[in-house]
Amino acid sequence: MLHILFLFSLILTTTHVLAQDFCVANLKGVQTPSGYACKTEANVTSKDFVFTGLGLEGNTSNIIKAAVTPAFVAQYPGVNGLGISAARLDLAPGGVVPMHTHPGATELLYVVHGHITAGFISSSNKVYLRTLKKGDIMVFPRGLLHFQVTAGKRPSLAIVYFNSPNPGLQILDFALFANDLPSDLVEKTTFLDDAQVKKLKGVLGGTG
Amino acid sequence: MLHILFLFSLILTTTHVLAQDFCVANLKGVQTPSGYACKTEANVTSKDFVFTGLGLEGNTSNIIKAAVTPAFVAQYPGVNGLGISAARLDLAPGGVVPMHTHPGATELLYVVHGHITAGFISSSNKVYLRTLKKGDIMVFPRGLLHFQVTAGKRPSLAIVYFNSPNPGLQILDFALFANDLPSDLVEKTTFLDDAQVKKLKGVLGGTG
Amino acid sequence: MLHILFLFSLILTTTHVLAQDFCVANLKGVQTPSGYACKTEANVTSKDFVFTGLGLEGNTSNIIKAAVTPAFVAQYPGVNGLGISAARLDLAPGGVVPMHTHPGATELLYVVHGHITAGFISSSNKVYLRTLKKGDIMVFPRGLLHFQVTAGKRPSLAIVYFNSPNPGLQILDFALFANDLPSDLVEKTTFLDDAQVKKLKGVLGGTG
Amino acid sequence: MLHILFLFSLILTTTHVLAQDFCVANLKGVQTPSGYACKTEANVTSKDFVFTGLGLEGNTSNIIKAAVTPAFVAQYPGVNGLGISAARLDLAPGGVVPMHTHPGATELLYVVHGHITAGFISSSNKVYLRTLKKGDIMVFPRGLLHFQVTAGKRPSLAIVYFNSPNPGLQILDFALFANDLPSDLVEKTTFLDDAQVKKLKGVLGGTG
Amino acid sequence: MLHILFLFSLILTTTHVLAQDFCVANLKGVQTPSGYACKTEANVTSKDFVFTGLGLEGNTSNIIKAAVTPAFVAQYPGVNGLGISAARLDLAPGGVVPMHTHPGATELLYVVHGHITAGFISSSNKVYLRTLKKGDIMVFPRGLLHFQVTAGKRPSLAIVYFNSPNPGLQILDFALFANDLPSDLVEKTTFLDDAQVKKLKGVLGGTG
Amino acid sequence: MLHILFLFSLILTTTHVLAQDFCVANLKGVQTPSGYACKTEANVTSKDFVFTGLGLEGNTSNIIKAAVTPAFVAQYPGVNGLGISAARLDLAPGGVVPMHTHPGATELLYVVHGHITAGFISSSNKVYLRTLKKGDIMVFPRGLLHFQVTAGKRPSLAIVYFNSPNPGLQILDFALFANDLPSDLVEKTTFLDDAQVKKLKGVLGGTG
Repeated sequence: MLHILFLFSLILTTTHVLAQDFCVANLKGVQTPSGYACKTEANVTSKDFVFTGLGLEGNTSNIIKAAVTPAFVAQYPGVNGLGISAARLDLAPGGVVPMHTHPGATELLYVVHGHITAGFISSSNKVYLRTLKKGDIMVFPRGLLHFQVTAGKRPSLAIVYFNSPNPGLQILDFALFANDLPSDLVEKTTFLDDAQVKKLKGVLGGTG
Repeated sequence: MLHILFLFSLILTTTHVLAQDFCVANLKGVQTPSGYACKTEANVTSKDFVFTGLGLEGNTSNIIKAAVTPAFVAQYPGVNGLGISAARLDLAPGGVVPMHTHPGATELLYVVHGHITAGFISSSNKVYLRTLKKGDIMVFPRGLLHFQVTAGKRPSLAIVYFNSPNPGLQILDFALFANDLPSDLVEKTTFLDDAQVKKLKGVLGGTG
Repeated sequence: MLHILFLFSLILTTTHVLAQDFCVANLKGVQTPSGYACKTEANVTSKDFVFTGLGLEGNTSNIIKAAVTPAFVAQYPGVNGLGISAARLDLAPGGVVPMHTHPGATELLYVVHGHITAGFISSSNKVYLRTLKKGDIMVFPRGLLHFQVTAGKRPSLAIVYFNSPNPGLQILDFALFANDLPSDLVEKTTFLDDAQVKKLKGVLGGTG
Repeated sequence: MLHILFLFSLILTTTHVLAQDFCVANLKGVQTPSGYACKTEANVTSKDFVFTGLGLEGNTSNIIKAAVTPAFVAQYPGVNGLGISAARLDLAPGGVVPMHTHPGATELLYVVHGHITAGFISSSNKVYLRTLKKGDIMVFPRGLLHFQVTAGKRPSLAIVYFNSPNPGLQILDFALFANDLPSDLVEKTTFLDDAQVKKLKGVLGGTG
Repeated sequence: MLHILFLFSLILTTTHVLAQDFCVANLKGVQTPSGYACKTEANVTSKDFVFTGLGLEGNTSNIIKAAVTPAFVAQYPGVNGLGISAARLDLAPGGVVPMHTHPGATELLYVVHGHITAGFISSSNKVYLRTLKKGDIMVFPRGLLHFQVTAGKRPSLAIVYFNSPNPGLQILDFALFANDLPSDLVEKTTFLDDAQVKKLKGVLGGTG
Repeated sequence: MLHILFLFSLILTTTHVLAQDFCVANLKGVQTPSGYACKTEANVTSKDFVFTGLGLEGNTSNIIKAAVTPAFVAQYPGVNGLGISAARLDLAPGGVVPMHTHPGATELLYVVHGHITAGFISSSNKVYLRTLKKGDIMVFPRGLLHFQVTAGKRPSLAIVYFNSPNPGLQILDFALFANDLPSDLVEKTTFLDDAQVKKLKGVLGGTG
């Protein structure tokens, strides 16, 4: 038996250094187009692959009556290089996840409880709109505008998945009204009225 | 106003034919290395992007006290070409999702309720093992052996996600014991005893 | 010499059937996640790789005083599978290419003549804005909102390139106001006022 | 036991339709940017994954005293979509695999017997040249000009691998001299003398 | 209103750290297979996304009466990781961009003014040759030999695009004659005469 | 002539800094999801692209009468980022390469001499089994369980190729029995008997 063990070990030693099954992010290390530099494998533990933050209810006591809790690579370094991540959506009655895109990923939404009306708009400007119930899933193709709103009078919870550790999130209103993009450029490129643009800039802290 | 509408429409017409935002599978069409041929866009509706089958509890009255309900491209044609899919895991008390791999995808598991002990084994033969509670997520890197078992005495439910519409699923016991791979080859290549191999072949319907 | 020719020909014959250097689209053939089925190589000619439509000035006598002429795979089958395409932007004085995204590609813009003010907005809501002159190039990362407007009083011309044969084009106003997405959903998810939404729906032919 | 078998079978049935582990080419089916349409899985046998043609010595009784036997997707349909292929190089004494590129793949060469001098030239015009002996491997990065010649007085054999099922093969002399590219264009773009171009066109059957 | 602002800000803060929409190259940082390490996002400005060097006419007072001005990642760090780049071709009367390949990218050429005869040669040794006029575009599939020459008596200008930030550029004459690859190896692998090889080595500074 | 040389050199200088044809690994540098940081190009020599270790016979005086000698990126830094690697299999009479997977790559096996029985098992649990002779090649799709055993009474040699510089290697017995995965979890998830598990844990040094 010892003989067997000894001989197998020879291979074991050889194979020990080969693997790059994963690349847990060293968030203080360099960032590259493919993601963050890897944490040394010796320091990786099972904790790196688990994220507990999605278990906490998001605070929906806000104007959109909704909360998004991300588990992207910045919060969950274990997904670095693995092409996957997730987020939690809490939607109170009347809640809204405003119109947005993920520039770098397709999204898959699962309804944990409640009812959610969700939709996306294609490049052909066609609307794909459904009201989802507990247990339903819906896919939102990469880069397209989409949104989710509470359907019915009860709160709802959804978990969304992305096929990128860093899907990005561009919320339309923030993109248009929460920065210094001059109002006349916003108006020219969106055909919105000046009063409308200035009102929303006021709300969202935009300037210019 | 009509003037504006008319002129905008010119662009609209032009852009109408450009998009391939998605490629809902025509499951009766050809299959290629990148997936199934697309259903004609004119026939695509919002129903194609929603799958309701994960809302149904799987039947765990079986020997593994567990059930896996897939929402892969074969069940959910809307994810064709989108690099994403999902499945539902029902685990009764004592339930087991046996040791398996997904040859073509990384998996992300979300615990809807209950407690689940899950683990994967790296190419360096190191075990990454955690007991997860409601709301936790855990990632299983592509191609590595992993498993899930019920922790505690209550049933549990998990939704798993994959970064491929067709992740594959190779359950170790089925791969070894549920086909016509000759017993002596199984034994030679796994070091399992003859009695053990034949016992499991008997259970799983393997021959040879 | 004939001897040499003869022997070389043996290899030539062998190699003749190997190539898939390109896959000119058969636009009437099946579409797959990786693009259209290929035209038979025997029928491919040099014309398939050239597109002359960008040489024609677009008609800017419209409300946006701008025209976009695409050379995507639907117009230019030669780029199928090659990961590249282009478009022509004509901008009259006061012209605007409205706020839009390309869900599936990064864009690179080259100013042929005139001056263009262009900008994009990142996921962090930061605006990257520049006025470009003849000969300048600017890159717009994949999936992010961006726009171009004429700078100064003369018309301008730009050629834009994409790293996909089918980049998609989602014009914000068309996505929001030129379809049947119910006005209350538009308002809820964009925070725009009802009057504003209805006004633009009127202009762009939206319903609901 | 039967009970166990029965219940396991439920899962087995479910999983049976999910896999696209491979996509053996139907060479008479459509070709797409990602490869050929797949042969029906039910018709796939173990023979599809084996190619025996590399076991046959190539005929080196030719002017280059060398032979290349490909096992690309056209000869070996089992590699379709799998991102890999191979070829056999027979080199007699004085043999030459002329300067060439593979537009779509990196190559790895293994010397089965004999000695081979091999080299590639980088984009920086630096030459990486080595004489290899039995058992050595050398890598030739994608798309770069490279060649192999017999070293010493004995024949040699090498097996080369590619990370594409369809790597392409552009032999410089065939590309320049074995077609109808007008001689003056060849001369202008290569700086070769007219006599040299016409001599090689004569040998290789080029016209113009 | 302030209330709205406050609550929106909560989300804003969360999303602020998530994005990797781009990865402007730190050219002094590490280089990896996916590109250069990213410049810190805080230091990125709109200037990083613009390159003005293509606005300058290249100096064609040389033997090829042509000039190539690249805007690859080394000159234009903003395209790092974005899968795109460009270059400017100035062609005087009689100008020639000699036979070359880009090992890592497909090229798309746009004629700004003048007439250009361009061609590429496939793996099947077929020539695809066209004379292009102002406004035409032509695609050159990845890794294949191609060239451009002035057509007619006037100078011409083209902008070329690549679907890689680092397409590489292997000019045939430089690869063969501008380094220390021994003349006998050049001759053996290209079938060029000794005198021809030595003449061009003399011109281009090659040794051996 | 000097004039020509001088002018060509202008281009040469420009192109000199552009290339990233390869990225030889600096094994002491950072590791990222796309591989190791690159060694400075100035320090790269032709030796970096050659690996001689596969020329040495592996020691098969062990229990499996087989030896695997890898030429992955950790042993052969030249393949970093190039999407390819190799390994040598020595099989003595009665030799076995035990059941294993490569999580990140497809494998292509070439029989240098001898006879080898090889097989893989698909996600549909179908076995693809062949006995290979000298010169045969066989492909093993990514991530699937496979094995090789000596056929006949003579030793055999095979070279295997992977379409990744870091394919990973998960040997089933090591994964199950050579670590601290608790025996009851092994038994639960594999249906193996306790005695069987403990016996193999004893042999392979597993604990728990």
